[in-house]
Amino acid sequence: MSGDSFGRIFRVTTFGESHGPGLGGVVQGCPPGIPLSEEMIQKELDLRKPGRGPSSTRRKEEDRIHILSGVFEGRTTGTAIGFYIPNQDQRSRDYSAIRDLYRPGHGDFTYDAKFGIRDHRGGGRSSGRETVSRVAAGAVAQEFLKTLKIRVTAYTVELGGVPARTVNPEAAQDNSFASPDPDILPSWENLVQEVKAQGDSLGGIVEVVADNLPAGLGQPVFDKLDARLAYALMGVGAVKGVEIGSGFAASRSKGSQNNDQMGKEGFLSNNAGGVLAGISSGQTLVVRAAVKPIPSIARTQKTMTRHGTETEISIGGRHDISAIPRIVPVLKAMVMLVLADMVLLQRAVKP
Amino acid sequence: MSGDSFGRIFRVTTFGESHGPGLGGVVQGCPPGIPLSEEMIQKELDLRKPGRGPSSTRRKEEDRIHILSGVFEGRTTGTAIGFYIPNQDQRSRDYSAIRDLYRPGHGDFTYDAKFGIRDHRGGGRSSGRETVSRVAAGAVAQEFLKTLKIRVTAYTVELGGVPARTVNPEAAQDNSFASPDPDILPSWENLVQEVKAQGDSLGGIVEVVADNLPAGLGQPVFDKLDARLAYALMGVGAVKGVEIGSGFAASRSKGSQNNDQMGKEGFLSNNAGGVLAGISSGQTLVVRAAVKPIPSIARTQKTMTRHGTETEISIGGRHDISAIPRIVPVLKAMVMLVLADMVLLQRAVKP
Amino acid sequence: MSGDSFGRIFRVTTFGESHGPGLGGVVQGCPPGIPLSEEMIQKELDLRKPGRGPSSTRRKEEDRIHILSGVFEGRTTGTAIGFYIPNQDQRSRDYSAIRDLYRPGHGDFTYDAKFGIRDHRGGGRSSGRETVSRVAAGAVAQEFLKTLKIRVTAYTVELGGVPARTVNPEAAQDNSFASPDPDILPSWENLVQEVKAQGDSLGGIVEVVADNLPAGLGQPVFDKLDARLAYALMGVGAVKGVEIGSGFAASRSKGSQNNDQMGKEGFLSNNAGGVLAGISSGQTLVVRAAVKPIPSIARTQKTMTRHGTETEISIGGRHDISAIPRIVPVLKAMVMLVLADMVLLQRAVKP
Amino acid sequence: MSGDSFGRIFRVTTFGESHGPGLGGVVQGCPPGIPLSEEMIQKELDLRKPGRGPSSTRRKEEDRIHILSGVFEGRTTGTAIGFYIPNQDQRSRDYSAIRDLYRPGHGDFTYDAKFGIRDHRGGGRSSGRETVSRVAAGAVAQEFLKTLKIRVTAYTVELGGVPARTVNPEAAQDNSFASPDPDILPSWENLVQEVKAQGDSLGGIVEVVADNLPAGLGQPVFDKLDARLAYALMGVGAVKGVEIGSGFAASRSKGSQNNDQMGKEGFLSNNAGGVLAGISSGQTLVVRAAVKPIPSIARTQKTMTRHGTETEISIGGRHDISAIPRIVPVLKAMVMLVLADMVLLQRAVKP
Repeated sequence: MSGDSFGRIFRVTTFGESHGPGLGGVVQGCPPGIPLSEEMIQKELDLRKPGRGPSSTRRKEEDRIHILSGVFEGRTTGTAIGFYIPNQDQRSRDYSAIRDLYRPGHGDFTYDAKFGIRDHRGGGRSSGRETVSRVAAGAVAQEFLKTLKIRVTAYTVELGGVPARTVNPEAAQDNSFASPDPDILPSWENLVQEVKAQGDSLGGIVEVVADNLPAGLGQPVFDKLDARLAYALMGVGAVKGVEIGSGFAASRSKGSQNNDQMGKEGFLSNNAGGVLAGISSGQTLVVRAAVKPIPSIARTQKTMTRHGTETEISIGGRHDISAIPRIVPVLKAMVMLVLADMVLLQRAVKP
Repeated sequence: MSGDSFGRIFRVTTFGESHGPGLGGVVQGCPPGIPLSEEMIQKELDLRKPGRGPSSTRRKEEDRIHILSGVFEGRTTGTAIGFYIPNQDQRSRDYSAIRDLYRPGHGDFTYDAKFGIRDHRGGGRSSGRETVSRVAAGAVAQEFLKTLKIRVTAYTVELGGVPARTVNPEAAQDNSFASPDPDILPSWENLVQEVKAQGDSLGGIVEVVADNLPAGLGQPVFDKLDARLAYALMGVGAVKGVEIGSGFAASRSKGSQNNDQMGKEGFLSNNAGGVLAGISSGQTLVVRAAVKPIPSIARTQKTMTRHGTETEISIGGRHDISAIPRIVPVLKAMVMLVLADMVLLQRAVKP
Repeated sequence: MSGDSFGRIFRVTTFGESHGPGLGGVVQGCPPGIPLSEEMIQKELDLRKPGRGPSSTRRKEEDRIHILSGVFEGRTTGTAIGFYIPNQDQRSRDYSAIRDLYRPGHGDFTYDAKFGIRDHRGGGRSSGRETVSRVAAGAVAQEFLKTLKIRVTAYTVELGGVPARTVNPEAAQDNSFASPDPDILPSWENLVQEVKAQGDSLGGIVEVVADNLPAGLGQPVFDKLDARLAYALMGVGAVKGVEIGSGFAASRSKGSQNNDQMGKEGFLSNNAGGVLAGISSGQTLVVRAAVKPIPSIARTQKTMTRHGTETEISIGGRHDISAIPRIVPVLKAMVMLVLADMVLLQRAVKP
Repeated sequence: MSGDSFGRIFRVTTFGESHGPGLGGVVQGCPPGIPLSEEMIQKELDLRKPGRGPSSTRRKEEDRIHILSGVFEGRTTGTAIGFYIPNQDQRSRDYSAIRDLYRPGHGDFTYDAKFGIRDHRGGGRSSGRETVSRVAAGAVAQEFLKTLKIRVTAYTVELGGVPARTVNPEAAQDNSFASPDPDILPSWENLVQEVKAQGDSLGGIVEVVADNLPAGLGQPVFDKLDARLAYALMGVGAVKGVEIGSGFAASRSKGSQNNDQMGKEGFLSNNAGGVLAGISSGQTLVVRAAVKPIPSIARTQKTMTRHGTETEISIGGRHDISAIPRIVPVLKAMVMLVLADMVLLQRAVKP
């Protein structure tokens, strides 16, 4: 069905499973003449690769991008950009023990219910590995957005319930948690070690911001900018909540507190997170996603087989302790895909 | 653009502004043979009308549904269902004072930025009044879902930061706050009176649940069931956050706490909120939306005119204190639209 | 399903049956600031009304347009334009005799097969009456195209196998057959009288041309400009064939004859009909549609009832002898809808 | 933009140019559990390869399919099917002479107008080579349709104005013109030799039929089955006309001749080509496409460069004399894609 595509004009369609030959996709609607190379995309893919932080496994998973079409002499041609990332490290045998087991917190049960057939090796299409295609497509969007000076940044604002106390987006580029607060790193590292020792896992909250966004992006009613962002982020596996600007806190404030008043220079605050009535206001866009703890844990859990037998499961091995920080570039990519699309839609009809 | 349509197979397209002749829409993809009458839709519209609760104005706003096509002898024919709700109470003069003012928290500024032209009377297309079409379309979806015994319920779980302490969805039908906790009503009523006296407004949190949902709804990757729900709910004006199941709390729990283990009878908990890997699990679907306080307040706020002059604004008159409870049937409608669509998509390809 | 919508950015969604309360639709994606009034649309609707020519019945069918949204102070606002045309002349009793009969050449049989339920009064959703919404939406597109000096014209190039011998599009505005050849009118009138006397009906061929189209419209691969045009025109009831430029004749010519060579001033011929590799070339767009004879005829035909009984049918009364000329503004409207959409898509990504 | 995708539920998205690394695509919406292998797809690709007939060049162009996802243990999983066909025979130098020339009848001029940048090597995205992805996707559709016993066949009914005099679809499988009339082969072969000697090229007409189609496929109004077919076929490069059933001939017949009357056993004729009011009737589906002569010819033609200089061009080398028969499996593939999609849409809402 259409669930493998995202976007209306700037649109990506992806394919691929964790244990097939590879993953990839097609980016449609990228304007012609945008500089694009495999290196540009590779840089973003490298941010997603495992082993970036203490919460990651040491699995060697080299994601090498191949651009298959749509780029000629270093620039986009305006036609479909096909791309491919071969799988390197499949090791199907790792997963044979769980062939008939429903791993708690995973899609094993629901995929069986939906399709009646399932590639049990590592989650198949439901594997987090599909996000490599999102990041690749997002990297294309990024090159387009760069030509408009729009800049999107993402970082971890909370890990396992411990929030960053300061937010310096620049700082997030330099550490293994994508933390905007270097001072919180020791606490987070301790937390990860502790939870790892317990055979357990952690979640967190990621914030994505976009600067230099023009006012006027988004559509009235169903395709509000924030609606598209929520759609984009909630579609990333492990995300269980999305909020814009003051978000859930807005529901506990009063109108006089939450409204962003205006002065001569424009808005005097940004509780709206850069979106008013679903349309960008020209302020910084601010969106956050709540990421659940990785469901694959070493601790023993009750579960059942696909044949209905009760049993127990302990998922050892090379699993991450947290989707953070690997999910950070994925969420950033999704925001870039939304913005590229909204920019083009607005171009189409702008007065 | 396509922002006035929602859904892939079961799909609604709406039109209308607060101060034009009326609002309405077209529902496509409703299967043939479903019993449908204007009364069935009217019942849902009446839940949305003002004056249901102490937080509402006394504006008389009779929303009378007219089915214009797609129903023959009391049943849907499978063809497009056109519907129309004439505007009754337009009183454009109420709004003339704000013709050139940007009301804080409203879309006045962003609509001007986007379109360069704006129906200033009551917000035009950005008015909450557009939700009447969502409720009408949702009522059609509801009749279809009823034939499958799927039942969707919505209620207020928090008002102005004060949570309901118990959740009995049945109880929510009988009171003016759509509260599932009758004992919290006095506190909420006091809070509303207090805030009204301050010329201020309140937000809250609404929960929507769906029972008897089959496992298998939702698509992998971008069109996960929770992604579609987040898209649907975040697109409702005033919603600033959406979460599924344990939501933001999941980000603060550990895998061993958040995973829903399984026993012989199925899942032993429902932190997932009925969605695993984006596909319904057959458990109760649980989704929540954070609603910001109504931006129209009597208290004086700084703002600017469209000509760039600084000024102040106080919005008196007949405005609600909170979007709750009027937003409750709107959010319920959006969930029903998502579910009807997902049921049909699954029918198309199920093995 | 999505079959009631057409277009990607400039997009219309319609509803309505011949014997319900009325018909209408929603136009999305029309840029803001375009002058638009009910009169502008009414003018196009009047071209479609019955009684324009000798091939038409004298049925009084006043199609009065009501714009319900999206226009403010005489200009489009950029938001959804809802419109409505009430049915005036329903007389359901005329159709009661054919309740259970499958009229040859009509959709009675196939609608029963598809939906299992059918509004038998006058064809329901399959009635040619649905085209009134296409004409209304096309009139909106026309006002947008006018701002770009793009002009679309349609006329009859063949009636009942008798071709117009000259083509002067201007002349087509002044006669009841939309004939671009005034000299052919007596032959066509005689033909109509003759066929009417036989209780039979006629088809024909309609040509639609667009002038001043910019080069560059259309998308590679599936959404070629000619593909979208074929989609648009073949979707009009009674159309059984579509061709672009030299069309079917191209299949019988040689490359050296069919290729449009180029000189200093551009193309030296226009066999391509203004479309090369699916993209507009800046030449005049030329497309033709083959219209089958009206299936409702007075002559006795064999048919069956929905219960499988063989029987005969003679459809007397007030039916047209030919879909021409009423279909002419419908086909023109469809071409305008395609062009408006393609212009906006090109605006979105043009370098 | 969205022009690289086709279909609503059963949906293909393609990418690739004649001179890049390769071509491919993604098939979404294929139901799970359908037997699928690379061999099944390869068989269809082989029907499209050059050198099948006297009208083809001897270029060696091995199109080897690689399935990258969506198939597990020989069956579709219901998730996205990625596929890839590497380019083997690129020889970019062949095209260097035409870098700045606009080849008559090709998209060189219009692609420049649209994108401002163009991969001049062999047409880039406008190359007929893109159809390899259509055939691959169509082969997937075919395997799905087989499970429903729906069978689609395509053959050449006219070459260079010389029609086949009999139509035996089985016979078309065995000869190099896909001719359903073995007796016409000598005439066609002579014609090809003659035209080849003139340095010229030929067009023709291809017919596609589908048997055992259920009644009820197609949507009212814009997505009629014939509209989708016209859209699908006209989108194939070189197609300039499409007709259903009696097609253009219907426009010259009378209602009493063109209507398909019904008897006890059903329809007594099939002028409708299996589609009534846009919905399949259960009769054989019959659709024809007019194919223009190949524009690349050895004969000298006038043209201009992208810098506006008049010049002449003669395209020698290894070009086909006609798109027939290589276009035959492409057109068949497009019809299968439409039918697979329409079957799934009908499944979704059928009563």
